[in-house]
This record gives sequence, structure tokens and C-alpha cells, in this order.
Amino acid sequence: MLEEPSEFRAVVFDSADPDFFMPHVDLTKVAEYTAEAAKAGGPGDASLGMLFQRLSRLPVVTIGKLRGRARGAGSEFLLACDVRFASREHAVLGQPEVGFGASPGAGGVQRLARLMGAGRALEVLLGADDYDAELAERYGWINRAVPDAELDAVVDRFAHRVARFPADAVVATKATVVHATAPSDDELRAAAVVFQHFVREGAVGRRTALLMERGLQTRGRTELDLGEALAALPPDDGAHDEGA
Amino acid sequence: MLEEPSEFRAVVFDSADPDFFMPHVDLTKVAEYTAEAAKAGGPGDASLGMLFQRLSRLPVVTIGKLRGRARGAGSEFLLACDVRFASREHAVLGQPEVGFGASPGAGGVQRLARLMGAGRALEVLLGADDYDAELAERYGWINRAVPDAELDAVVDRFAHRVARFPADAVVATKATVVHATAPSDDELRAAAVVFQHFVREGAVGRRTALLMERGLQTRGRTELDLGEALAALPPDDGAHDEGA
Amino acid sequence: MLEEPSEFRAVVFDSADPDFFMPHVDLTKVAEYTAEAAKAGGPGDASLGMLFQRLSRLPVVTIGKLRGRARGAGSEFLLACDVRFASREHAVLGQPEVGFGASPGAGGVQRLARLMGAGRALEVLLGADDYDAELAERYGWINRAVPDAELDAVVDRFAHRVARFPADAVVATKATVVHATAPSDDELRAAAVVFQHFVREGAVGRRTALLMERGLQTRGRTELDLGEALAALPPDDGAHDEGA
Repeated sequence: MLEEPSEFRAVVFDSADPDFFMPHVDLTKVAEYTAEAAKAGGPGDASLGMLFQRLSRLPVVTIGKLRGRARGAGSEFLLACDVRFASREHAVLGQPEVGFGASPGAGGVQRLARLMGAGRALEVLLGADDYDAELAERYGWINRAVPDAELDAVVDRFAHRVARFPADAVVATKATVVHATAPSDDELRAAAVVFQHFVREGAVGRRTALLMERGLQTRGRTELDLGEALAALPPDDGAHDEGA
Repeated sequence: MLEEPSEFRAVVFDSADPDFFMPHVDLTKVAEYTAEAAKAGGPGDASLGMLFQRLSRLPVVTIGKLRGRARGAGSEFLLACDVRFASREHAVLGQPEVGFGASPGAGGVQRLARLMGAGRALEVLLGADDYDAELAERYGWINRAVPDAELDAVVDRFAHRVARFPADAVVATKATVVHATAPSDDELRAAAVVFQHFVREGAVGRRTALLMERGLQTRGRTELDLGEALAALPPDDGAHDEGA
Repeated sequence: MLEEPSEFRAVVFDSADPDFFMPHVDLTKVAEYTAEAAKAGGPGDASLGMLFQRLSRLPVVTIGKLRGRARGAGSEFLLACDVRFASREHAVLGQPEVGFGASPGAGGVQRLARLMGAGRALEVLLGADDYDAELAERYGWINRAVPDAELDAVVDRFAHRVARFPADAVVATKATVVHATAPSDDELRAAAVVFQHFVREGAVGRRTALLMERGLQTRGRTELDLGEALAALPPDDGAHDEGA
């Protein structure tokens, strides 16, 4: 519907839950989701990454307003929005996939590498840790960490400006930036294949099962501090020796 | 003349006006400028963007020192310089084109996307707002926001270092960086075509006329706070509904 | 050996010397080094840049922990690591090659341009100055400047997380980021050729000889403050006129 010509030119994505924007995908249900998605879309484009790719090309301005946690596909959704503003006090971002034994499958690897450069993207992706808004801003993950009391005003100011400006200028300028900076469809399709491969592998199932016992998918410490919970898992397979 | 071999290897671009470095192009005169430029240059290269492209390839080091406001083509000029230092207290940067109903035509879209990444470039370009030096530094628009009292010393230190170093090393290293990072000539030519298209369209003329009534092109509030003035214009054409 | 499959998945590169991590290459010995390297490697791949390229592709996570100074090839080594953390109080980074009359030959130009964008890379490379950790962080040269008392803990936390995560997920994710962001082998080979050309030229020999008289390659002011020492050299050849 948003792909039709429309008078709505700025859309703000917000969350009613103060703790969670989008926590992450339930990795035990990916096969199910994929089967459903395959019924809806064409071959090769049934992935979440390609859905987010289409989001990023919409002829409207998409604004992510983050309070609470956005991890995994939640972060990847925000990364496919045009701009991202977050509460300095409350926002948390993470790409925890590697900690589960997978790799972000919906554009997180590709978009973070472009936004923050190799060194910081490798830290975020390989470390699978939680990041507060202040550090996420320094790394370029979000546009700005804003004091919580000012977040609504900052987002409203931007949304109202854009919505009043001539639509064709907004749309053409957005399209040029997205064209010059976005990952290719091929990169996103490859990421989806790698993600699916890892989700079918043993480590993801075992580690997700362990985390479920510790409260994954329920409101509690494991979800609130997922970065800590991942580090507390026993090392998998041949991983008992650590470098130093 | 600067394209000739020269012993001047560092050029500082400064402004005598404390409020304005280069405010922006008079959009009502673009047709005139273009006709003049076409007399001087070859076909397809008569645009401001291609002039700035040539600036960025000069075998001298170009340094922008910003006090006051640099908007539109003023910002694009600075972006084509090698390095940019700005007064923390006084500098203001903006790409207001979308607020007029156009799109930056002289490399602003392409260079900002490369310098600050997609999210922040989209914010700057679509929001058409004014940015102080501190935020411009966080976004990578300028190298550094420097306390006004230290700005001259910082620029002089850099200029004098570069001017004393072996010329061939300076020139070869600059050329490698510019080659690896600059937008292509084709991207800049396409941006000029899009800009010209928008300038000939109705919205730019109507909005510029409204702003002229409010003091555009004269020293006063409208020029000092152009970001505010653009947001205060009535929405154009089918833009009366806003998203939320 | 590190290129063999291994259970060590995180390697921390540290320095026992509190003042120097890797100061820089002795430019008077490059011909010697190159002859030695040519015996060991295949044609075209005997350069330090290609060695660092192989480092960046290792299926282990490489972590640079910087106290003291990393200049020239020392900085280029760190840039080829996956992540870089530095002591806020003590770390110093520099690419002094242009000040000697050369151009970084082992990936510094290419990696800095990608990490910090054109403007800041040109400042760092052409100015050949020393940068403290705080500014290096703002420019993206390092992941983070960390208070010295916390540096070991930050590095250990990251290393231990990565070492406990499933190896195949870590390795595949790293490979995707490196593939998308690294300079090409051809760019690195070209940089090595340019570097060798400059090292054979007169200016590098003359300037290195002057610096040797002033204490280069010995522990003292010239090495501690190389950025200052380079600016204090007399200008070379036709460089007596300075721009302003």
C-alpha cells in the first residue's frame, strides 16, 4: 500500500513497548516464517532482507524512533529506514546472530559495514554485544542519540519539515542517495542463504534451546541483557581453547 | 591558472564576511548562469558540479576555513575542497535545495552520501535544515569544529606542513585518495540535469518568490535562519496531509 | 601457521614497549627488506601491503591493542586487524610518509580513505601529523579510545566473547565484511609500486638523513614527536613558497 503514490510522505515507526522495539526473530521459527513468506512472494525475494530492501526504496521518508531494544531483525529494520533517532537513556541496539551461531540475514552485515566502516562493523557483528545509544551514535548506527525528553520533538520537527516540502524533490533526492549507498539485491539474497544455512545447523538450535531455558522470548533478564546472556553460554564444539 | 604546475601547494579558502561564507545560489538566476557557463566550457561540463570536480582534482591542497554560513553551492564548494575546518561557535552548514523544491546539483548529494553514510545524508538532504559546526563534525561534513579562537592556528599549521612537504608525494597521495573516493563525472552530470529540471519546475519558482518577499538575498533573518524560513513556507501542491 | 584451521579464534596484538607499538619502517632499509621478501614470496605479492592483506583475511579475529605509538607500517598493520582499541591517554597514531617524501605503501591510503572518508583521510595523509587516541576515534581510525585503566578489560571482553562463539558463524561473518570493505589486491600492489618509487627518489633519502642526525631510529624527542620533527625539516626542492 505504501508503494502506491500517496500524500503521506513521512512515516514514523515507533513502539508502544518501552523496553522492546523489535527484540529479534525467534530463530526456532525461521523455517515456518520462510514457508509462509514463500507463498506470498516470488522466488528469491521471499526473504526478510528483500522486504527491507523494498522498504528502503519506498517513495516516502521512513523514520525510526527508538526507545527500548532493537536487536537482530529489529536493528535490520531500522537500518532499512531512511533515518534513525534513539533515546539516549533507553535505547539498546544489537546484532546478536553470531552469538547464536548464525550471521545477520536481512541486511545487517551489509548496511553496518557501509555505515560504520569495517572495524566497527566487525566489532558489532562478531562481538554480538548490546550497544547503548551514545556508542551507537559514535559508530554511526543511528543518526543521533537524543535525550529522551527531546526525542519526540526532534522526530516531529524532521517529519513535519519533510512532509511539507515538494514531494518530487524529496523522492528524487532520496532515490539518488539510496541508489548510491544501498547493498545490492544480490548481496542481500546471498546473506539470506547464509542465514538459512546457519539456522538449519546444530549450533543455532542448541544455543537457542539453552537460552529458552534461561528465559529467551519472555520478558526478563535474558532478553533485557541478551549481550550478557550470549557470553554466558558454554562455548560450542571445538571452541574450548581461547586465543590471547 | 591553478591547474598549471605551481609552487603554491596549499590554498586556504576563507571569507571576509563574518556571517556568510557562500550563502547559496540565487535560484531565479540559474538559467542565466547556465547560459554564461555554456559559453565558457565544453558541452556537458558547463555545470557547477563539474567545475567543483575539477577543483577537487587540482594538484594543490585546498583547505576550506569556515566562519559564518555555507549553504547549497557554498557547502558543495567546501565538500570539493580537500579538508574543511569550521568555527565551533559561528559556522552553519546547510543543503537547503529540497526545501526549495530542488535537489543539490553540484555534488552535494554524492559527496555527503560518501562522507556521512546513507542515514545522515538523507537527514541532511531531505530535512534541508541548518547544522551547527559541532553536529556537522559528528556527521563528518567537516573535518573538525574548532574553537573560533584556535581556527586560524589549526588551519595555518596544516597549510604550512603541507606546503613544506615534497610536492610529488603530496600530489600523488591526494590523487590516490580522490580517485578512490570521489563521485564519478557521470554522477555529477546526472545531478546537474536533475537540478536544472527542478529549477525549471513550478515549485522552485513559487517558493523562491515567497522567500524573496520574506527577505531572501538580503542580509536578515530569512538568510540567517534559512532552515526555519523553509519550514515556515506553506506546503506545496498535494502536500497538505502529513504522515505520522 | 595462522592460516591453518585452528582453535584459536581471537588473537590480540599488543606491545611490551609502553612508548612504541610499531614506530615506522626504517626507510633507508626498504631496498634490503624488499630483496629479502622477494626471496620468500611470489612475484607481485612480496610487499608488506599484500602481507597485511593476507592478515586481514585470516579465519581468526585479530585485535589490535594500542598503547604508545603506531606510525607508518605500524598504523597500517593495525588497519589490517579486524578491530582496534587504544589507550585514551597514551596512544598516538600517524602516517608520516608524505612528510618523508613518500606515500603509505602498505594499505594506509586505501584503508583510511574507506574508514574515515575523503576529507579526514586527506588531512591525516597529507598533514603527516601525530594524532592522539581521542581524535583518532572521532575520525574512525580506531574503534574506540578507552581509558588506559579499562583498556585490557575492554579487549579481553571482546576477545573472550568471540572466542566462545561458534567458529563457522564468526568466520563467515568476518569474511563477508572484509570482502565488502577491503581494498583490492590491485590497489595494494599499485600502492607498493608508488611507495618503492618514492623511496628510491632523492627527497626521501635526504629527509631521512636529516632526521637521522636529529635522532630518528633512537628513543628520543624526534621519534616521540615525529609529527613536529617532520614539520621542522627545511622544505624540499621547489617548495620554498607557501600558499596562503
